Parts: sequence; C-alpha cells; structure tokens
Amino acid sequence: MPVKYRRCLKAMLFSALLLVALFNLWSPSSSLGVDIRPRQGSPIQKLLSGKIQQIMSDYSDINYKVKEKVACQLAQNACVCQAEEETFRLPFSDLVFPRVWALNLQHAFLGMHPDPESVKHHRAEEYDLFLRRSYSPADMLIIAEANNPLQFPTQGVDVQPLKTIVIPGLSLRQEGRNNYMVQLTATLGTFDIAATVDKVSVKGMGEKNISLSSPVLSALNRQLQFVTYTNTMFHPKTTDLVQFGTEGHQSFFTIKVGHRVVPKLYNSGQSKGYNITSLVTIATKTFLRYDKLKDLIDSIRQFYPTVTIIIADDNEHPQPVTSPHIEQYIMPFGKGWFAGRNLAVSQVATKYVLWVDDDFFFTANTKLEKMVDILEKTTLDLVGGAVREVTGYTATYRHTISVEKGGEEGDCLHMRNGHHHVIEGYPNCVVADAVINFFMAQTDKVRQVGFDPRLSRQAHLEFFIDALGTLHIGSCSDVIINHASKISLPWTKTEKQKAYEQFRYSSTSTDNTIHNEVFYFKNRLKCMTSH
Amino acid sequence: MPVKYRRCLKAMLFSALLLVALFNLWSPSSSLGVDIRPRQGSPIQKLLSGKIQQIMSDYSDINYKVKEKVACQLAQNACVCQAEEETFRLPFSDLVFPRVWALNLQHAFLGMHPDPESVKHHRAEEYDLFLRRSYSPADMLIIAEANNPLQFPTQGVDVQPLKTIVIPGLSLRQEGRNNYMVQLTATLGTFDIAATVDKVSVKGMGEKNISLSSPVLSALNRQLQFVTYTNTMFHPKTTDLVQFGTEGHQSFFTIKVGHRVVPKLYNSGQSKGYNITSLVTIATKTFLRYDKLKDLIDSIRQFYPTVTIIIADDNEHPQPVTSPHIEQYIMPFGKGWFAGRNLAVSQVATKYVLWVDDDFFFTANTKLEKMVDILEKTTLDLVGGAVREVTGYTATYRHTISVEKGGEEGDCLHMRNGHHHVIEGYPNCVVADAVINFFMAQTDKVRQVGFDPRLSRQAHLEFFIDALGTLHIGSCSDVIINHASKISLPWTKTEKQKAYEQFRYSSTSTDNTIHNEVFYFKNRLKCMTSH
Repeated sequence: MPVKYRRCLKAMLFSALLLVALFNLWSPSSSLGVDIRPRQGSPIQKLLSGKIQQIMSDYSDINYKVKEKVACQLAQNACVCQAEEETFRLPFSDLVFPRVWALNLQHAFLGMHPDPESVKHHRAEEYDLFLRRSYSPADMLIIAEANNPLQFPTQGVDVQPLKTIVIPGLSLRQEGRNNYMVQLTATLGTFDIAATVDKVSVKGMGEKNISLSSPVLSALNRQLQFVTYTNTMFHPKTTDLVQFGTEGHQSFFTIKVGHRVVPKLYNSGQSKGYNITSLVTIATKTFLRYDKLKDLIDSIRQFYPTVTIIIADDNEHPQPVTSPHIEQYIMPFGKGWFAGRNLAVSQVATKYVLWVDDDFFFTANTKLEKMVDILEKTTLDLVGGAVREVTGYTATYRHTISVEKGGEEGDCLHMRNGHHHVIEGYPNCVVADAVINFFMAQTDKVRQVGFDPRLSRQAHLEFFIDALGTLHIGSCSDVIINHASKISLPWTKTEKQKAYEQFRYSSTSTDNTIHNEVFYFKNRLKCMTSH
Repeated sequence: MPVKYRRCLKAMLFSALLLVALFNLWSPSSSLGVDIRPRQGSPIQKLLSGKIQQIMSDYSDINYKVKEKVACQLAQNACVCQAEEETFRLPFSDLVFPRVWALNLQHAFLGMHPDPESVKHHRAEEYDLFLRRSYSPADMLIIAEANNPLQFPTQGVDVQPLKTIVIPGLSLRQEGRNNYMVQLTATLGTFDIAATVDKVSVKGMGEKNISLSSPVLSALNRQLQFVTYTNTMFHPKTTDLVQFGTEGHQSFFTIKVGHRVVPKLYNSGQSKGYNITSLVTIATKTFLRYDKLKDLIDSIRQFYPTVTIIIADDNEHPQPVTSPHIEQYIMPFGKGWFAGRNLAVSQVATKYVLWVDDDFFFTANTKLEKMVDILEKTTLDLVGGAVREVTGYTATYRHTISVEKGGEEGDCLHMRNGHHHVIEGYPNCVVADAVINFFMAQTDKVRQVGFDPRLSRQAHLEFFIDALGTLHIGSCSDVIINHASKISLPWTKTEKQKAYEQFRYSSTSTDNTIHNEVFYFKNRLKCMTSH
C-alpha cells in the first residue's frame, strides 16, 4: 500500500480509537442534576399528611374521663428546670437522702456570654439544619386505613442504590367489577415489570408512575407479583415514599434505599477460651503520674503479659515508656483528658478496648475474661466494672439518663444513680446508661460515639450523654480493679502529687464555660438535673 | 426526760433514719432480670412470619412471560468473581479502555493461610454474631392485609425507653354487630388507657395484652384514641412488634423504642460569610518529608493564617514543628498511614475537617469556602476536591462502589471510575462513593467511619468501603490543591526522598496479607473488581 495511504489509515484508526476512548471515559452516569438540599417534603409526603388528617376521625362529641395515673406519664414537651425541694434537714441528710440538684444551662452559659441573643439564634439555626439533614420519610407517621381493598408491605422493603427489586405483597382484593385498576407512584425511583401476564394492561413501565389494569382480578394480582422498583436517584441511605392506590383508596409505604452494610469483623484467631491479647487492647491517658503508670503496667503484666497497652501522654516533659507491647503517643502539652482518650481509642486494632485510668492497678479480681464473655454473649456494647479504693469501698458509679423534650429552649437531661434491670444469666451485672471509668467496650462502637476533644479537664458523663441511643451499656460488680491510694496527709504529698492536683482540680472559669457550652450548645440542653 | 430514755430515743431515731436511707439507696428499678442475648424471635414475630406465608397468595396456575431486560437486573445472591475478558489488544489499550480486573480474595487470603478452614469457620461465626446483634424487628417484612376492618399506624410511632405514649390512629371500622372487640399484644411494653369512656370494657390495663370491647362502635373508637403504650424492658435502641387484632383479622406494626437523639451542634460563632478558622481544622500525617510539610504549612498560612493544623507524625526521629495554631502528635515509629489519619481526626474540635497529604500545597485555587458552602447547604457529609500535578494534570479520583450479595462465601465489591449524578446548583460537583485524598468532611461523620489503624502503608479506598451507607459523598473539581512534584531523575533524588520511597513503596508480603485480611475477613468479601 502506498505510504500516504498507510499514514492516512493509521490516522483514521487513531482518531477512531480516540473517539471511542473519549466516549468510554465520559462517565456513563446520569447527566441529570440531582437536588441534594435537605428535602422539604415531596408531593407524595404532602398528600400523605393530608390523608392522615382525614383518617383521624373526630369523636369529640363523646365524653371521656382522664385517668390521671396514666395521663401524667405522657410527655408534655415542656420540661421544667427544677431541683427537688428540701423536705427536711438533718445531719448527714445529704448522704442518706441525696437530693436532686438542677443546673439551668441557659442562665449558666448565656448569663456569662457577651452576646446571648446571637448564640441562641446560632444554636437554633444549627439545630434546624441538623433536623433537616437527618429527616427521613421513614420517620413519618403513616396510618393504614381500614377496609382498604389493597394489600401492600408496610415495612421491610429495601433496595441498594440504583438497583432493582421486586416489591413483595402487592395485591387488590375486590369483587364484582368490570375492570380492576391500581397505580403506584414514587419519587426516587421507577417501576417496571419483571414478567408479563396476559389480559393485563400496563402503562408507565420504567417511569415514576405505573398503572396496571385488567378485567380479570387474578390476572392483575399475578401481574402485581412481578412489579419491580428501581432506585434512580442515588443516595447512600434514604427512604422513598410510595403511593399505592386504586379508585377510592390510597395507601402509602416506604422503601429503604441504601448501600448494603459492609461489616467490620475482627479476626482474633481460633482458640479455646478467650485470647485476651488478640481480643483486647488496654487504653489509658497519663499526666504527671509516671510512677502510678508504672505500677499499673507492672500489675497488668502479672496477669496479661502480652496484651497491648496504648498510652496517650500530654506531659510537658514526656518520659519514654518503652516496653514490649506498649505504644506511647506524645500529645501537645496539656491538650487534655478527653482528647487523650479519643486519641488512645483511635489507635486500637482489636475487637475490644479496655479503658483504665493511669492510677488503677490490676489484681487477681481483675478478670478481663468475664467482661469479654458478657460482651460476646449479649447485645451489650460496653460493660463497666468496679473500682476499689484502698479503704475497701468499691464503686460502680451506675447512672440512668433520660432526656425530656423541652421545646425551643432545649431539652432537659436527668441523671440518677442506679440502673434499669439485672441481666439474666449474669446476677452481678445490670443494664444502665452510664458507668464508672473502668470499662471494656466494642472498639468500633466507642469510636462511633467518641470523646469530645474540647473537654480538657474533668469530664466523664459527657461521653455517656453522647452515647445515648448508640451504646447498650452494662455494669458488672464482680470485675474489680484497684485504685491507687488518694489518702495522703498534706505534709507527705510529693511535689509531683501537688503539681498534679494543682493542675487537675483547679478548674478555671474557662473550663466551666466549655462544659456549659458543650451542654447548652452542642447537646442543645436547657437544663440538667442530677443527684 | 431521763438520760437512758433520750439515748433510747436517739437510737430508735437513728435506726429509723438508717432503714429509710437504705430503702432509698436500694435502686428503685425493676429487679426482674432482662434477657439481653441477641433475640431469636418473639412469639409475635413467629406469628407474623406464619401470617405472611398465608397472605402471599399462590397464583402459580397463571402463566407469565419473563421480561429479560428487567428480570436480569434483579439480585441473584450469587456474585461471581470475574474480570472482564480482553476483547482486543492494541498499544495503549489499557489506557483508553481500562479493563476491569478481579481479585478473588478467597484465593488471595486463604491461599496464603496456614489454616484456611478454621479462618473460614471463625469468619462465619463472627458474621453470624454480627447479624444476630444487629437484627431488629424493624427490618422484618410486614404486609398489611386487604379488607381489614382495623386501622392502625404502620410507621412513625416511637417511644423513649421506659416512657409512655398514646398510640395514634387505632380504630375499628365494622358494622352490624352486637359487640365490637379488639386486642393489642406487645413484648417489650404494656398497654393502658389515658382516659376512660363510658360503655367500654377494658381488660388487661398495665399488661402486655389488653382487650377493649363495647356494644357501641363509636365509644370503642373513642376509647381507642386513649390507648397508651409504656416501654417496660429498657433498651437504648430497639423495636417492639405489636399485634393488633379483632375477630378474624390480625395486624402487626412496630413501635421504635430508643433514647431521644442528643445532637452534636458546633458553635462556630456568628459572622457574615464562613469563618474558616472556627469551622475547619486541617489534618495531615507526615513521614520523612519535613521539607514538604513546611512548604504545605507556609502555603496554608498565606491564605488561612489562623486555621488550626493537626499533624500526626510517626518519624523515627521526630522534629518539633512549633508554630502558632499547629498541634503535633508523636506516634510510635512507623505506626502507619491510617493509624496516623485516625489519630489526626480524633483531635479535631471544629465542625469540619480538611484532609491533606503532607506533600500538597495551597494556591489561590484552594478555596475552602467553596467546600464549606456545599457541606452547609446540601446533605453531603464529605466533599473531595481536585489535586493538580506539576504537569497540570488534575485528578479527582471519583469512584462508584457497589456491593453485590454473594452468599456464604462473602459478597462481591465492585469499584468503577466515575460518579452518579451532577449536583444541582453546583455544576462542578458530583455525587460519588469515593474521592481523592483531598477532602473536607463533617468531623463527627468521619470519626463514625474511622480509618482502620491496621493499614500501615498504602491504603485509600478502604476508608470509602467502610463509609458505605454512612457518608453522603461528593466531589467538586473547582477546588484545587497542588501536589509537590514527584518528577525527579534518579540521580537528583535526595537521600530523604530515596528513604521515603524505599519505605513507602516496598510493600512487603505482610502488607498484602493485611490488606487481603481486611477485605476477606473484616469486610466479609469474596471478590473485588475494579478498573
């Protein structure tokens, strides 16, 4: 072939390849824009709200008599910030009858703020944004009306993003008509049919609105067994509201759209019994107490010679702690308590993490296997133990926490000493909402909650407040760790001890402000009451 | 009064006080044990499963014709690990037509393992435990039967633990009977009435099974407006399955039981526009590249002089990086990439975190305000930008990820270059499942996902795999950061550069094993396919 023809051919071939490549590289996704502003409410949602108004019949002409005992338990949406009144005062009455105190956060935080009105406004804005972002049609109230000829799924239908499923359970139960017709409408997806049935007419296949009709009811119902839903508007986790209707009747149900959950399983090896080294990492934070830290480590090694210990260290002049199976992390000086806790747990590579303070020490009663056992065999995410003082006094610091809705000013949070139930099969263990600072937990769940790094000095219950609704918490009084003695006469205290106490217990007004800001702003509370 | 009488009286008073105190301290909670093993299925659940079998009518006598185009989209639960076949081979064909490759993780991981059978078994056990722990009646399929005289809520009913609500929407619509009767049964709570209505007989108030009857339908329906549910078995987040029935008809619905979500709002102050210092913290990890790190910091300070920069540093001989608004954290030597990332984000105290690599540098195109804007105004949790090489080539590394169910051997994970949709209002931005290593995200959501600290060398998409279903991810090509040049002739490389490349790019077989273990065991995958 002449040279110039060969060149021409090569050029054409190259251009063709280039075009095909460009076509291939051009992303094969929908070029339609997707509106991902927090959703206000689709037309179907508005229709549903209207329907619910209709359904909720009015029987206001029929009298009733309030049953006080029950009616008073119903939420009022208007929590009041009130401490318990002092009924009587006796020596030691506070010890035997711990009174409930109340902290009015609006006064405590806004009262100290230079510009309270704009903080209130900013909090309201952030909360509104939070509500709109977390809103889902899955939370809407839907009421199935009575005597509805439609049969449909009310929950349990889910589809992965951009994938297709058959909708289970759709059916029409009517009689004596010439023609039977149903319609389906959705917002985030389309309908189609996976198979065709004779004598059924289908309109709108591949669209957001499909209608199916037939003079033969059984044929229509057979066809309904093949109706599919395809999610077309990608979202990693949302809900589509579907309207399913026939003449004179409308039903609503939701389809969950979301990625299949990829689990986080831990390979701790196969062994009879619990291999604590494979299953557990011990985490602690240290400051100005290397001597106590050393005692802790030595005591751990007596019982668990190869378990990994992670130390978050924010000393001004850190000393290296170098032993096998120890990881030390140096933080900016005085960065703080919860920052150190968050750091330590961020480094854990085992299924469970055990939190200990740097002035604890292990004894033969510190049986980590017991904690692993209850975490493996129940739905608990976290289990606290007991801390024994040198006097013999042992504390579990069990608390219950409840949140009472409060309206625009924020909610009320109530903390009380105590627990909810004893755990069957574990007579020394109970279910609670907060426990002492000696606990073992599922690493991933603790990281999901996190320790707020802004809390630099004293903090404890803040973690459990952030954990509400996420962690299932227990407490066992038969797993005991010892607390290094705090009893020391003023003239025997070492310089280090004095320095530590100076740093830790001299809470400045800045610290208080941060705490109040966390409760008032971050957690949107108006009031806290506690023993 | 004689002395001994006074003593006697004091002793009696003291004993009385002690008794009362002991009574008070005795936790006022239920002493009934609660079984918190992962639930197998309550009697009501079993009844429901049976009912669904009945409801799903059999029309197998009616023929159908499969519609291939739709039927083939339906999930098969049997993903196959297959690379694309090579259709033709030309010079540069891999560049213009990137082929899909497949990694069979069973072979890759189990093939190298000394005891593959027990690893398979261990993984199956862990997965089974995971399923049982995360199972909820809220996921069960429930089908509302047709022509049911009962009206009831199908979703949207929730109650806080141990609290009481009125159940909305309960009603009976029947006619022509002498007596109308309904029953409600639950597992985790009890029923009662908040008010009484004449002519209605109620049995089982305060119990798990309540029945209401009346000869007058409107009276019964008025009474049904006051039926309450009280959760009695504490759980921070679960679902109770309720059975609501009348003669010949049974309905099922769920009530969500859980703590009220306490939000995590950030106080970033009030200002016109976005105050980047209050809203964003920059996080990075550094190793053997202090020179590049310095360039990064200098470039940030040109545009954002007071933004906080957090540096995770696992150098063998760390050099202090001391400048205002910089926090440096020293890790054990070579602890690794994802451990460093997890550490850095664990310390962030602002609403958003910006991830950058230590060899990036800011330019006038690195407008963080644009990223904040899209995160504030849409439901995105994370938005990636673009990284420009010294050649001018700019990458966004957008990927889509999907998980295909695979049965007992595990699932298949498919990653492809590309995105899902363009974002309305943001023409340079798209929705995807994974992006490049330059992104801004909601701090709390990133921490919820976390960076697996076991991944010490190269890792990137593992984070996005763990994020599936949690993070709503976007990518904007108009926020650009520059990448320090990687182009250097072998004889001009500094010793440091050689040391870095030596460390980073010499992946050992241990690294590969860890990666394969993470995919095979932790994420329970059988296969991964990707471009």
